[in-house]
Amino acid sequence: MNDVRFNDLVMAIRGEQAPRVWSLLITVFGDLAQDEDARISGPVLGQLTERIGLKPEAVRVALHRLRKDGWLTSQRQGRSSDYFLTDWGRAQSRAASPVIYGKTAPARQAWMILTDPGKPMEEPGAHGVPVAPNMFLSSRPQTTASACCLALDPAMPLPGWMTAKVCDARTTDASVAFLGQLTALDKGLDTGADLSDPQTAALRVLIVHGWRRIVLKAPDLPAFVFPPEWQGPACRDLVTNLLHRLPVASRL
Amino acid sequence: MNDVRFNDLVMAIRGEQAPRVWSLLITVFGDLAQDEDARISGPVLGQLTERIGLKPEAVRVALHRLRKDGWLTSQRQGRSSDYFLTDWGRAQSRAASPVIYGKTAPARQAWMILTDPGKPMEEPGAHGVPVAPNMFLSSRPQTTASACCLALDPAMPLPGWMTAKVCDARTTDASVAFLGQLTALDKGLDTGADLSDPQTAALRVLIVHGWRRIVLKAPDLPAFVFPPEWQGPACRDLVTNLLHRLPVASRL
Repeated sequence: MNDVRFNDLVMAIRGEQAPRVWSLLITVFGDLAQDEDARISGPVLGQLTERIGLKPEAVRVALHRLRKDGWLTSQRQGRSSDYFLTDWGRAQSRAASPVIYGKTAPARQAWMILTDPGKPMEEPGAHGVPVAPNMFLSSRPQTTASACCLALDPAMPLPGWMTAKVCDARTTDASVAFLGQLTALDKGLDTGADLSDPQTAALRVLIVHGWRRIVLKAPDLPAFVFPPEWQGPACRDLVTNLLHRLPVASRL
Repeated sequence: MNDVRFNDLVMAIRGEQAPRVWSLLITVFGDLAQDEDARISGPVLGQLTERIGLKPEAVRVALHRLRKDGWLTSQRQGRSSDYFLTDWGRAQSRAASPVIYGKTAPARQAWMILTDPGKPMEEPGAHGVPVAPNMFLSSRPQTTASACCLALDPAMPLPGWMTAKVCDARTTDASVAFLGQLTALDKGLDTGADLSDPQTAALRVLIVHGWRRIVLKAPDLPAFVFPPEWQGPACRDLVTNLLHRLPVASRL
């Protein structure tokens, strides 16, 4: 695909504002080089980030910081370097992968957990997502003697003050915007796409990156406890579909 | 039945401490003379209260106060007086009767109502029995947009801090004690009881009075949300059975 047409696809899924380089590089390595022996060479990384619209100088600074923060290591190879995840960086990526790449909702049921207001507060999140003092939503029933655990009926909508605590307006709005971006990319690819491997990799990374920034902020609760505007499930379906059509190349 | 045996029955159902005369007289008129044209003559009232173990002087003082408070009126009849409920007193009695004489539990289901902690508190009891801030138990589902209404499963016991708010320990303990008294009276009557009409009326009044002081303090919620010690349902069954065996005489 020529650069002009490809750049339209990049803008469709990326949006106007370029992503933060540091964070995007974590997506790059998590998506394309999470295996133990996986590496990305400097020149390949350069091609990829250039296609996404990142400045080489910004990429160099971010790589330096990611090494300093313990995410990446590099190894000299002739005149360039290979970059790869540290053990710690790989562990972080692996922990997030089931949430990012999961093809189905993380939970189908939810319970309301009510705790004793006369007792000192436990650590935040101990019982689930707090929606009010002593009220928590959880994807698991909790059968302690001191808490009241009530199953939620998926057909009964929760009041707005409660769903707003499950997912804040910024993340809900981001899911609406991202669904629009995914839909635009989906349309752009439908008109016949002849993508090079680096082009495919760049689009993959932008899809995963956009989704990661939404899904990792959402709790593992079923969609029926989210605000009605929440587009997480539709985004997840389209992400799954697009990533299937944009496979990772065997060699970058 | 002779006075000694009858007095044993009175003590069994009444307990050691004599009831408050003012309150007991309200039970007398509510149970025996609630109809519009019902009256109780001074001498009949004297016989009844004497059998219960009340002092004539205390009865005179209480009658005076009940007239002053608007519960009763009296009308001269030759050398004595007839006493009867005022319209207001009758309305009070009628309002309480379904709760006192109901043969079945006031409610079979219960809902947890959760209200918005960000909103100012509504009037107490607007949503049901408060068990914690913004948490209410109700025998009716409430489908307002701003409240979350969750059905309770009768098979799932509620935690102690919650049931303690439904019914305080004093009322729960009173139900345990009263069940003992009812059982003792039941046994006493089983050995063959040849009661006069005033004796029957006296026992009725004591049963209704003891039960009234418990059931009117308990919320109209099903037994499964009460503390496990609560004996309300067993008391209700025995009260119903005993009142059936001790009918109001057509003439006092």
